[in-house]
Amino acid sequence: MNIGFAGLGGMGQPMANNLLNAGYSLTVWNRSPQAAQGLVNAGAALAQRPSDLAAVDVLITMLANDAATEQVVVTSGLLQQLRPGAIHINMATVSVALAQRLAALHAEHHVGYIAAPVLGRVEVAAAGKLNILAAGDAQHIARVQPLFDVLGQHTWRFGDKPEQANIVKIAANFTLASAIEAMAEGSALVRNHGVSGADYLHMLTSTLFAAPAYQGYGALIAEEKYAPAGFKLTLGMKDVGLALEAGGNSHTPMPFASVLKDNFLDAVAQGDGELDWAALAKVATRRSGLK
Amino acid sequence: MNIGFAGLGGMGQPMANNLLNAGYSLTVWNRSPQAAQGLVNAGAALAQRPSDLAAVDVLITMLANDAATEQVVVTSGLLQQLRPGAIHINMATVSVALAQRLAALHAEHHVGYIAAPVLGRVEVAAAGKLNILAAGDAQHIARVQPLFDVLGQHTWRFGDKPEQANIVKIAANFTLASAIEAMAEGSALVRNHGVSGADYLHMLTSTLFAAPAYQGYGALIAEEKYAPAGFKLTLGMKDVGLALEAGGNSHTPMPFASVLKDNFLDAVAQGDGELDWAALAKVATRRSGLK
Amino acid sequence: MNIGFAGLGGMGQPMANNLLNAGYSLTVWNRSPQAAQGLVNAGAALAQRPSDLAAVDVLITMLANDAATEQVVVTSGLLQQLRPGAIHINMATVSVALAQRLAALHAEHHVGYIAAPVLGRVEVAAAGKLNILAAGDAQHIARVQPLFDVLGQHTWRFGDKPEQANIVKIAANFTLASAIEAMAEGSALVRNHGVSGADYLHMLTSTLFAAPAYQGYGALIAEEKYAPAGFKLTLGMKDVGLALEAGGNSHTPMPFASVLKDNFLDAVAQGDGELDWAALAKVATRRSGLK
Amino acid sequence: MNIGFAGLGGMGQPMANNLLNAGYSLTVWNRSPQAAQGLVNAGAALAQRPSDLAAVDVLITMLANDAATEQVVVTSGLLQQLRPGAIHINMATVSVALAQRLAALHAEHHVGYIAAPVLGRVEVAAAGKLNILAAGDAQHIARVQPLFDVLGQHTWRFGDKPEQANIVKIAANFTLASAIEAMAEGSALVRNHGVSGADYLHMLTSTLFAAPAYQGYGALIAEEKYAPAGFKLTLGMKDVGLALEAGGNSHTPMPFASVLKDNFLDAVAQGDGELDWAALAKVATRRSGLK
Repeated sequence: MNIGFAGLGGMGQPMANNLLNAGYSLTVWNRSPQAAQGLVNAGAALAQRPSDLAAVDVLITMLANDAATEQVVVTSGLLQQLRPGAIHINMATVSVALAQRLAALHAEHHVGYIAAPVLGRVEVAAAGKLNILAAGDAQHIARVQPLFDVLGQHTWRFGDKPEQANIVKIAANFTLASAIEAMAEGSALVRNHGVSGADYLHMLTSTLFAAPAYQGYGALIAEEKYAPAGFKLTLGMKDVGLALEAGGNSHTPMPFASVLKDNFLDAVAQGDGELDWAALAKVATRRSGLK
Repeated sequence: MNIGFAGLGGMGQPMANNLLNAGYSLTVWNRSPQAAQGLVNAGAALAQRPSDLAAVDVLITMLANDAATEQVVVTSGLLQQLRPGAIHINMATVSVALAQRLAALHAEHHVGYIAAPVLGRVEVAAAGKLNILAAGDAQHIARVQPLFDVLGQHTWRFGDKPEQANIVKIAANFTLASAIEAMAEGSALVRNHGVSGADYLHMLTSTLFAAPAYQGYGALIAEEKYAPAGFKLTLGMKDVGLALEAGGNSHTPMPFASVLKDNFLDAVAQGDGELDWAALAKVATRRSGLK
Repeated sequence: MNIGFAGLGGMGQPMANNLLNAGYSLTVWNRSPQAAQGLVNAGAALAQRPSDLAAVDVLITMLANDAATEQVVVTSGLLQQLRPGAIHINMATVSVALAQRLAALHAEHHVGYIAAPVLGRVEVAAAGKLNILAAGDAQHIARVQPLFDVLGQHTWRFGDKPEQANIVKIAANFTLASAIEAMAEGSALVRNHGVSGADYLHMLTSTLFAAPAYQGYGALIAEEKYAPAGFKLTLGMKDVGLALEAGGNSHTPMPFASVLKDNFLDAVAQGDGELDWAALAKVATRRSGLK
Repeated sequence: MNIGFAGLGGMGQPMANNLLNAGYSLTVWNRSPQAAQGLVNAGAALAQRPSDLAAVDVLITMLANDAATEQVVVTSGLLQQLRPGAIHINMATVSVALAQRLAALHAEHHVGYIAAPVLGRVEVAAAGKLNILAAGDAQHIARVQPLFDVLGQHTWRFGDKPEQANIVKIAANFTLASAIEAMAEGSALVRNHGVSGADYLHMLTSTLFAAPAYQGYGALIAEEKYAPAGFKLTLGMKDVGLALEAGGNSHTPMPFASVLKDNFLDAVAQGDGELDWAALAKVATRRSGLK
């Protein structure tokens, strides 16, 4: 199976590497080609432009956002040149609207389209332990399942329409942002009563909330350690924006998401957009007169 | 050590029982005395009125709310008759304002006052595995630590002022309510895109949010199983109200808590106040046109 | 008709003065007696303590808040000494809960109790042009209508229960705060697009929103002129708190009021509590990175 | 001066009519040509397609939304065929993003571009009494001022960039929606205390809020008269969405707008999207258990 891989950012690079190590024949493309160097040294072919990936059996994209995805897949002409019967797996977090548009375009060109965004950060990707959220044609998914087994520890299936995986990923990221905000407000409250925020968060994430999401972000908030960013605040704001957009289009009010969006905007307006999105907690801290 | 125990509700009963089994001499009081019957059969003495507990070394109260606590401890005359040097451990979730008032009153009467609200539901109390959130004079806490060791798996210390344990408990319950709301909004969003809410919540609580709080409430929301109530919605609303009250008094804005309060009120106005507080999810369901 | 008047603040003083000028026999009381000097010089009798007002036919109170009202009317013993058949008109903005409590207490002592909070600031009070929001027993109101005609331009009637006038006043103040917030957010939005906030507000309050509330506060926001305070931000926060409390007790969610409370708390945490409540606009300005 | 007018909906028709009556030579276009019949009978020329308007000196468009505007002006080829030196006045409520895109495109084609959205409903348009919010090149505005003088009672100027008029219009509509919500919440609150919502709103809009916006919508809410729609709820939701989009792009948090969006979505999910946007009040009514 011939695989094309576009988008070698923090996540894409270790994912492509795992596929290469598993013995797949891999052609890679990235906007700035230096990110491809390690993979090329390890045996991957280098595409000069997206359309150089047109001959693959399976195209995997892991691009920054809607605009980059549309640019690389559609505007570049790549999709139009893929072979009928090829399958495109989009593993990035994109909007429901783009997923729907891409699904229709791929159908026109007789190319399979699967959405398979992932849960897990860079080190999880490197360990091949991602959780893969997949949606699309069941036969298509079955065909690429061996690839998912290389990349992740488990594939979760959410339906026949690719957008269904995207909405699940968007909802999951919204839930993460909500966890950060809840820890931020709670910490501000206890600190304004003379209790150490770190003590509070340590207890919370050792008991009822002893889950990876809370422990990771709880520690960042307790230490106010927001740089370097594991996941940038502006990206978190973008994802909550995707939740609100999808909610708006499907008549789903999301009051927590609305609060999050407003608070992210406040954070960005104060110049904190490049920090880790756990820096959302700085908003609650500032508004409650702490520090 | 002679112990008095007032408040034999769902939590108080197994807690008192564990103390009795550990060999402590126990006198119990409850508004409706039938709740005391099992304990009396097992060897506890029965107080006819709160003031019958006046001779104890340690008084433990686990009463429904601020009003009941104030009634039983102060209005009844009990506090005024406790021996100087006695210690009162208030294990209920009460307001910061009441904690401060009680601390001052106990000091006047030379009675120790410790706040020690707990995390854990009835079955956890029965197993003696509660997490105990304690605050107050360190020497007083040291003296009653053996009792905490009977009742809980761990005692978390939060400062010298009793109210500091209460604010931590209030913040923890606010975080639970936030988790319920985030799951509710996310479920409504994915359901409005044709994804099963149960599938979504199962994935979420098996991965990033694999914590007791999410798993327990996630299952209730997935099954829409809101009766019988483990913890009544009106009580959850009361606790979020305590967070807002404490936030208001300490200049801590809590926009998530504000959303929660408004949504709890909506739920109660629709007649759902007696359901489990996970029924907060019905609000998101209704507002998004589901069902 | 013998009138007692307690509470000679910014509003009470000109109101009492108008009654004196209209020929009524007036006895006045104020916590700091110097505020009574002008009235005494003009012919009013001075009460040394609240209970010195016990012989009046009509008692008017215009006190700062619930606590002051309860102190002066009940704790001082005044209510208990008023003659059966006397009428107490409470013109202050107090909580629904206090109104209910006072109504019951007055009934016990066979003293009439009318709630009659007012709309209008100091200069309107001085001109005898207040809008009076009245509720209580219709016959009692009819008896004191001549006094209302001296104090106000119009008396609006809202029911037989005194609290009904209070809830209307609380709702009106909530609406004012909402108008301030809407102007604040809109100004921040246009300013972040290079439009003068003053130009925007001038247009708005000259057209669709050509009403006293918008014009007055619009000018303050446009000029960022928040001192001296016409109505202190902390008092506005208190009144929005009364709306939320009444909403909470009657199962009325008020999401705008919740936003307002959180924003007032932010303002107070930044040290702006003593400014005019139009300084709520500073919150929107700061959060959007302006200035 | 030769004028082209595209978009003969409820607002466009009386506006075009006023220009015709003022003696201007007018060519009109509308998607469904029957709306043009009256104007044609009165002397206007009829364009078969948008590009038939290419020879005019001044093009006025009053189209339903961003998509319709972009379709008629750009996709149809009209803009590309307008004479250099011609001026396009866009009087519809469109997004800031579209205004910016159109301004750039017009500049490329050496066609002037003015944004001039209006305040006022159909009857105000018919009376030539609109308030016109104008932004764009000052010389261009000066040239078309005689047209504005026919259409409106006053032209308000907001800057050199067309989008600046759009953001003012968007902010004004947001303020209207906020007024509706504040009246809705206040009414629900007083009704839950036994006060007539109509009495409350009548008082409010006769005193502090004696402005057209409050009186008009206050009466609709008091009578719960939401059909036929003067301005459809879905359109109001769209405009609040434009505020949030512009706020998002300029880092301006708008918590009131967020609440409004969530409540509009709730209303639409309950099937009320075709009612007048004052039906936003039904949300507060339902949530507070009324009716």
